[in-house]
Amino acid sequence: MTVYNFAAGPAMLPLPVMRQIQKEFLDWRGLGISVIEISHRSKEFIALLAETDELFRQVSGVPENFAILYCHGGAQMQFSMVPMNLIGLRPARKALYVETGNFAQRARQEAEKFGEIEVVASGEAGNFARLPDLRSLTLDKTASYIHLTSNNTLYGTQWTSYPDTQGIPLVVDATSDILSRPMDWNQIGVLYAGAQKNLGPAGIAMAIVRKDLLGHAGPHCPRLMDYQTYAQNQSMANTPNTFAMYAINLVLKWQLQEGGLKVMQQRSLEKARLLYETLDQSSFYQGTADPQHRSLMNVTFVLPNEALLELFLSEALANGLVALKGHRAVGGVRASIYNPMPLAGVRVLADFMQQFEKTRG
Amino acid sequence: MTVYNFAAGPAMLPLPVMRQIQKEFLDWRGLGISVIEISHRSKEFIALLAETDELFRQVSGVPENFAILYCHGGAQMQFSMVPMNLIGLRPARKALYVETGNFAQRARQEAEKFGEIEVVASGEAGNFARLPDLRSLTLDKTASYIHLTSNNTLYGTQWTSYPDTQGIPLVVDATSDILSRPMDWNQIGVLYAGAQKNLGPAGIAMAIVRKDLLGHAGPHCPRLMDYQTYAQNQSMANTPNTFAMYAINLVLKWQLQEGGLKVMQQRSLEKARLLYETLDQSSFYQGTADPQHRSLMNVTFVLPNEALLELFLSEALANGLVALKGHRAVGGVRASIYNPMPLAGVRVLADFMQQFEKTRG
Repeated sequence: MTVYNFAAGPAMLPLPVMRQIQKEFLDWRGLGISVIEISHRSKEFIALLAETDELFRQVSGVPENFAILYCHGGAQMQFSMVPMNLIGLRPARKALYVETGNFAQRARQEAEKFGEIEVVASGEAGNFARLPDLRSLTLDKTASYIHLTSNNTLYGTQWTSYPDTQGIPLVVDATSDILSRPMDWNQIGVLYAGAQKNLGPAGIAMAIVRKDLLGHAGPHCPRLMDYQTYAQNQSMANTPNTFAMYAINLVLKWQLQEGGLKVMQQRSLEKARLLYETLDQSSFYQGTADPQHRSLMNVTFVLPNEALLELFLSEALANGLVALKGHRAVGGVRASIYNPMPLAGVRVLADFMQQFEKTRG
Repeated sequence: MTVYNFAAGPAMLPLPVMRQIQKEFLDWRGLGISVIEISHRSKEFIALLAETDELFRQVSGVPENFAILYCHGGAQMQFSMVPMNLIGLRPARKALYVETGNFAQRARQEAEKFGEIEVVASGEAGNFARLPDLRSLTLDKTASYIHLTSNNTLYGTQWTSYPDTQGIPLVVDATSDILSRPMDWNQIGVLYAGAQKNLGPAGIAMAIVRKDLLGHAGPHCPRLMDYQTYAQNQSMANTPNTFAMYAINLVLKWQLQEGGLKVMQQRSLEKARLLYETLDQSSFYQGTADPQHRSLMNVTFVLPNEALLELFLSEALANGLVALKGHRAVGGVRASIYNPMPLAGVRVLADFMQQFEKTRG
């Protein structure tokens, strides 16, 4: 039985990448040692990381005025690093946060340690089923930055494009949709992502930082929380997570081979459509996100009651459909369908959903 | 040709561990997915981490009044976390540092951001070839803690036992000799180690924190820099480096199977003796560390000139002896012989050294 892993992160990685890691795990590039055993200061590893930067630029289209940083910790370390690095950009030491879910709120809570935070819009009243409309807002121009979460894994919503931020540097948590579609880097100040969804294994974050935003951390900023430390040391101020860097390299090569961001976007649209159509044709399942703001990465829905939910999850598991349980904070079902999830896996899930509805609904 | 990897870190891991990772990389425990693809919130992964804690207690003998934490970043993230968590223990906000090498100095430099730091002893004048004698010093009892580096990878020195710290909590950077010998936990306040030498892959640090030392970080401490966050969330406040945790689990099992810390210590003594005897019997090679303070983990020496050094390194490499180049800050040769390095590898190196001396010396 083929297993399809719908985990929200750590999530499945492309099978060709996983096979390559396994194949060369004891002997990387004929050196007789593993990539996880080689010095990060070796010429081979330095070349690997330089190549990874180059691959990231090719895939993402990010221009040269952005630094590509590989930071310790995941996105939640960025929740601290963003204010520590950016809040001092303007004398008001103020930042704006858009709350579209649990992680956006956590980012805001953490930022409150470092300056004045204004929540300019929140979807909490509507249980985060919709994204707030920022167009009618006048944003405080003394703010150092405005932060938003690109895709909300718990609630299954996603910005299809980023709002105009009226000249205030935009900081995007793109953990769950980085490299899933083409994007306009002109809108971005900082874009960051924990790796464990679309990039690679857990325990590392990529931060893509416009170079004029480097160097603004205060004198008490821990060395490895300062973007400038990473920028000045090619992300090797200390021993980095070499395994994750290596895996990211392979994932980026896979992306290029598959055709890049336009292909990823096309596939995402197709995979998501299959599931949303299944939801919309059903009176048994109910999607939780407003159709206008539905995520192409995480499809969330509920069943009529908890007993049916449990049955759904256990029968899905028996059919090789793994990790469909919704986040503990919201319940229900969540199917995470990042880049590595093949259309075939989504088809199996859609068929299973229809079958389950027929027999149990 | 068998390759022996003498890298200082990332370093070689036990071959049975590496083989097991490779074997089960695509299908962990029959789940049909990889351990790097499974949710850290899954019951299987939670059980793995609980087992890892238990294994660490068994191997290390650390008592229940210490918390076992798996922190983002390596030892250098601990250089910040230690003062951020501990300097507020006493009103003076002061800490004492013992400088025995490059990393000890970096730890001290970082701590200076957070309070008053006194260097109570330094080996810098003697180029760190000797460890300072702390017995004659009177330590400032208003200090929150005293920090020392257990083993100095660059200079090849190691404390055989930790000095009496006159009641001041002792913080030990044990990155390069953790779990290499039995130890007395009664002496310890905090012991931390980047994983990439004796524990597992890079990109994670273990911090073993006496429980009364938790909860003393200030209100502006970033959430993932606070030991209490890790302690209260079983090191899963956010998505951790799951691959490294898994590998650490396997390394600890290997340690137990091999016979534990006494066996590791015995082997280290034997491996180091072989190399130091080679140095002492030679007028060609010169050990850099004072014989009284020699490390069992990193054997450092120099050759008569740079040309011979280059020749030595290239001929060694041709003989499958990898990564013997000394740290860029000190030059010379460094053979790192942590737990996973088999005696056979050290024998090949000692033979090679003697042969090289005979033909080139």
